[in-house]
Amino acid sequence: MQTKTHPEYLFNGSHDAGLSVLDRAFAYGDGVFRTLLVRHGIPVNWDLHHAKLRDDCECLKLDCPDEALILEDIKCLFNSDGFGVLKIVVSRGEGARGYAVPANIKPNRVVIRLPQPTYSAVNVDEGVKLFLCSIRLSKQPVLAGIKHLNRLENVMARMEWSDPDFIDGLLLDENGFVIEGTMSNVFARFGDKLLTPDLSQSGVAGVTRARILKMSDALDLDVKVQAFTLDQLFEADEVIICNTLFGAWQVRALSNRSWNKQMLASKIRTLLEG
Amino acid sequence: MQTKTHPEYLFNGSHDAGLSVLDRAFAYGDGVFRTLLVRHGIPVNWDLHHAKLRDDCECLKLDCPDEALILEDIKCLFNSDGFGVLKIVVSRGEGARGYAVPANIKPNRVVIRLPQPTYSAVNVDEGVKLFLCSIRLSKQPVLAGIKHLNRLENVMARMEWSDPDFIDGLLLDENGFVIEGTMSNVFARFGDKLLTPDLSQSGVAGVTRARILKMSDALDLDVKVQAFTLDQLFEADEVIICNTLFGAWQVRALSNRSWNKQMLASKIRTLLEG
Repeated sequence: MQTKTHPEYLFNGSHDAGLSVLDRAFAYGDGVFRTLLVRHGIPVNWDLHHAKLRDDCECLKLDCPDEALILEDIKCLFNSDGFGVLKIVVSRGEGARGYAVPANIKPNRVVIRLPQPTYSAVNVDEGVKLFLCSIRLSKQPVLAGIKHLNRLENVMARMEWSDPDFIDGLLLDENGFVIEGTMSNVFARFGDKLLTPDLSQSGVAGVTRARILKMSDALDLDVKVQAFTLDQLFEADEVIICNTLFGAWQVRALSNRSWNKQMLASKIRTLLEG
Repeated sequence: MQTKTHPEYLFNGSHDAGLSVLDRAFAYGDGVFRTLLVRHGIPVNWDLHHAKLRDDCECLKLDCPDEALILEDIKCLFNSDGFGVLKIVVSRGEGARGYAVPANIKPNRVVIRLPQPTYSAVNVDEGVKLFLCSIRLSKQPVLAGIKHLNRLENVMARMEWSDPDFIDGLLLDENGFVIEGTMSNVFARFGDKLLTPDLSQSGVAGVTRARILKMSDALDLDVKVQAFTLDQLFEADEVIICNTLFGAWQVRALSNRSWNKQMLASKIRTLLEG
């Protein structure tokens, strides 16, 4: 999954054009991105991903590229039978030196085709083990929730462990509240309540999290956003991590706490696939 | 100063190579940078800038490129009479998808020649006016002080004003402590004390700030790091902003507070040039 690849990509629709060293995504992380699955040439849950891309662009006062142009890029990169991962990056565009956004700057869109990730069946069958990261996520309400390109906290967190037994790392804020995994969102079941952290100050509010938040009826659980601390998480009946690429996995171990295998992750996966 | 330019640059010493869309600086802002002046082909205060680049790389667990290679790049971009701005970007290198740093990844260095900025003489003669930004800087001790490529807070702050009368914007943290300008560090004189904010939680600790912190004897002031709030700043006798490109300017106005023209900024500029 982490092998070095030279991917197929389109830069503003072109195979030939390339990134400038003055691109503001390179200079400042000034942009947003999306990662999603493509099956049979079709971007999965496209409406949700496109809506999130548009919302994230709006938060950064970026002009979101036309949906039609992105869909054309996808068609170009994936044939009608294509399977893989699609990454979309929208950068503020090419600037000069300095933080001020030049007048008439044009956003750049980069659409990248990457190989389908292969996850161990063990993650699905047995659940996963999380590493407890020591870095605490900062609070920034202006940027929280957005999948922007300022991801050094995730990078620093991911450097904390190398043991492949840990599938992801859990991130807390400075007050000990659970926020997310480095590459996933988190849900914790307490009796008939399924809670996911409040991401108004930190974290990325993913599309899969949003989908699970609408599953109250199907799961017969009260699924909602509600803050909880690490200590409270240890008291949860079940813990789930989710993202667009793998769906949902049960967390079986975190620090000294372990959980028995249960059925919620499997139910959620089925609903996500439905 | 903000005109669109297609600069001369070297990518790992080459004129021809270009950025990959999988470069982690583009994907995650995973890297650090420096901006400095070049005069007569010589990078000004090189030892300090190189030391800061090396320290910042170390904080992110990045291998800093060899000093000799960077100096060769500079020689290549600037002839012995060259004047201008030099920007050095060190990126983690080309990755795959995902935050984990691939084994044997090689950092990329990009060295860019940009035009000499032209600042109005009014800034020197009369001082400058600061905008008070509403975005509050987040606290992240793991990244504070480092001139890394995650600069969306500065970008969002810089978007808050367009009136060119404001030379920079002042940034506070969530508790109302003064941290820095979007492109400068701040000093405030209270009697015979010249204070600059503590940057252990937020902000970029610039080279010029470090140089001014060593000027106690020359200025006959007790120059030191000590936190102060916005309310305390309004009580200051003099306020100065500084960076590598312009040196030091007196702040004459911020919100409803104005300050008379005084001599400290001019003294500091002279010492910085010395």
